[in-house]
Amino acid sequence: MKKIIVDVEGCDFPEKMVGGCIDAAKAHPDYTIVVVGGKDTVAKAAVGLNNIETVETTDVVTNYDAPARVIRQKPDSSLVKAFTILNEDDDAVGVVSAGSTGAVLTCATLMIGRITKALHRPVVTSLMPTKIDGKLVCIADAGSTMDALPEYMAQYAIMGSVYMRAAFGIESPRVALLSVGTEEKKGDERTKAAHALLKDLPINFVGNVEARDALSGEYDVIVCDGFSGNVLVKSVEGTAKFVMTKLKEAIKSSASAKLGYLFMKKAFNSVREAMDYHRYDGGAFLGVKKLVLKSHGSSNELSVRVSVDRIVSLYENKVIDGIRDGIASTVESREETANEE
Amino acid sequence: MKKIIVDVEGCDFPEKMVGGCIDAAKAHPDYTIVVVGGKDTVAKAAVGLNNIETVETTDVVTNYDAPARVIRQKPDSSLVKAFTILNEDDDAVGVVSAGSTGAVLTCATLMIGRITKALHRPVVTSLMPTKIDGKLVCIADAGSTMDALPEYMAQYAIMGSVYMRAAFGIESPRVALLSVGTEEKKGDERTKAAHALLKDLPINFVGNVEARDALSGEYDVIVCDGFSGNVLVKSVEGTAKFVMTKLKEAIKSSASAKLGYLFMKKAFNSVREAMDYHRYDGGAFLGVKKLVLKSHGSSNELSVRVSVDRIVSLYENKVIDGIRDGIASTVESREETANEE
Repeated sequence: MKKIIVDVEGCDFPEKMVGGCIDAAKAHPDYTIVVVGGKDTVAKAAVGLNNIETVETTDVVTNYDAPARVIRQKPDSSLVKAFTILNEDDDAVGVVSAGSTGAVLTCATLMIGRITKALHRPVVTSLMPTKIDGKLVCIADAGSTMDALPEYMAQYAIMGSVYMRAAFGIESPRVALLSVGTEEKKGDERTKAAHALLKDLPINFVGNVEARDALSGEYDVIVCDGFSGNVLVKSVEGTAKFVMTKLKEAIKSSASAKLGYLFMKKAFNSVREAMDYHRYDGGAFLGVKKLVLKSHGSSNELSVRVSVDRIVSLYENKVIDGIRDGIASTVESREETANEE
Repeated sequence: MKKIIVDVEGCDFPEKMVGGCIDAAKAHPDYTIVVVGGKDTVAKAAVGLNNIETVETTDVVTNYDAPARVIRQKPDSSLVKAFTILNEDDDAVGVVSAGSTGAVLTCATLMIGRITKALHRPVVTSLMPTKIDGKLVCIADAGSTMDALPEYMAQYAIMGSVYMRAAFGIESPRVALLSVGTEEKKGDERTKAAHALLKDLPINFVGNVEARDALSGEYDVIVCDGFSGNVLVKSVEGTAKFVMTKLKEAIKSSASAKLGYLFMKKAFNSVREAMDYHRYDGGAFLGVKKLVLKSHGSSNELSVRVSVDRIVSLYENKVIDGIRDGIASTVESREETANEE
């Protein structure tokens, strides 16, 4: 049986993570969920399911640990242990961790390794909700690599495209490039160079997108450098929270609004739910040989459940092979072009 | 009497702009408001106020005009005419235009000129609301210069600081640098270099800010390169709209929510008002010899009124002198450091 590893430590709610593991094990009887964490925490996973395994660890990676050193300094941490299993066990297909982003990326890169030498850089993606209910947009890069070269961004486009197809069955994902205007010549030098590369890729490239239209639902993948991708993802998060807080304050300040709120509670909650990142948690780290999903530091049961669901989809739709082939094809086409010249 | 020029054309609602001119003239009897636009439009400004002048023009700059060519090709446009008056009339202190951003910047740079040769680049700022009612944050650069050098950003910090003091009386504006983490070493090469420069400036530099905290109210100025500044400003705008639309949809879909909405309408409107960009319209273009405020393409009466109010504050608080001195002091301190070395 194939295994999906869940590192339940290094986050705000390890017990909720365990709860999510149990839900995921029930939902996927054909997979074993390997719960990695402290003795007391993983003990809670013993609910009599055949397809749950537990691995006890004695150490935890925190945000204060230097990512580059955790592999050597914290071999008994849940995070390093989870990646050790992922690396060594042929049946292990992927890992979910809500731990330190930097440490997850370091372990993925150093312990699992790049999918192919032709890949410049793996990429951290982030999913965001859109105006169209149930439709998500993938931001690549959401913040993993600073000072990206246009060549990196071209490969993010390929990986993002393969990912959205494998994860959500989108036949021909619409890929856009984040810029300051929709015209091809708009943007900084990096973006203009990336635009030229994206145009020639075997993907459904639909041109530039401005940040204000990122959530329009018209795009499946938005390609950007890690700095501006991080600005995009975090400002969406911050602004959504800001507006909801402002509304809450306004409601509290008036008796009639409080009364109105009782009638509207459901409508409010539906919006809060649509914006709830737990529903689409698990930022995929694409470009390494196995599946790695980094979920939010305050992950809950739902986060783990949707992350495991996604790993199953990605595995069954052979996303790793797809990315390897996609990257290889761009390298071949580059070589062909070079030979022709 | 000092004059403030308002270009009322090249936007969605010229008549609302005229309405705003009338309001502004009433509010500022010590200033003359010069209304520049088409014959029929400016005719509406003739309401018997002594401190309104009108200038009739026969042409309009649109978003389709190449900014670099409007000065030569459209000398009779309201935009070029407004800048001609600003340039030639010693009593003219500033201009408000809701026209094409590129054309406004071109006219400001070429017809009015840089404040001092020591200035690398003028900068377009944008004001955004924050969690603290009535408190705004200034984004510099909001999108005017691509591929900024760290040296440009250091000057944005000076200009933004002087601007927020002159416009809103903030004694010691808190200036932050947009990055992907609060730690000094986080960010791309440009941002890290800018951080090092900002630390040495005679401003209240409080370190890095992540995009999710941009609207926290803890910062008065957020310094960034034009690309990521544009991403920040536009994603805040897009996300706020997104959340409000989602709420509206949710309300419409349920009878009880509709009923609740009746009670909550006031609370809703107060939030919509807090987010309404007209209330803080007029992105200042800093670094040129006179005051230039670019207001939103769909500016209304309020936009013009607040823009004129701000020009008055900026003029009376000598923002141009402040910026010139601020830029000069950094150049002197650089020269001193160079001499010491």
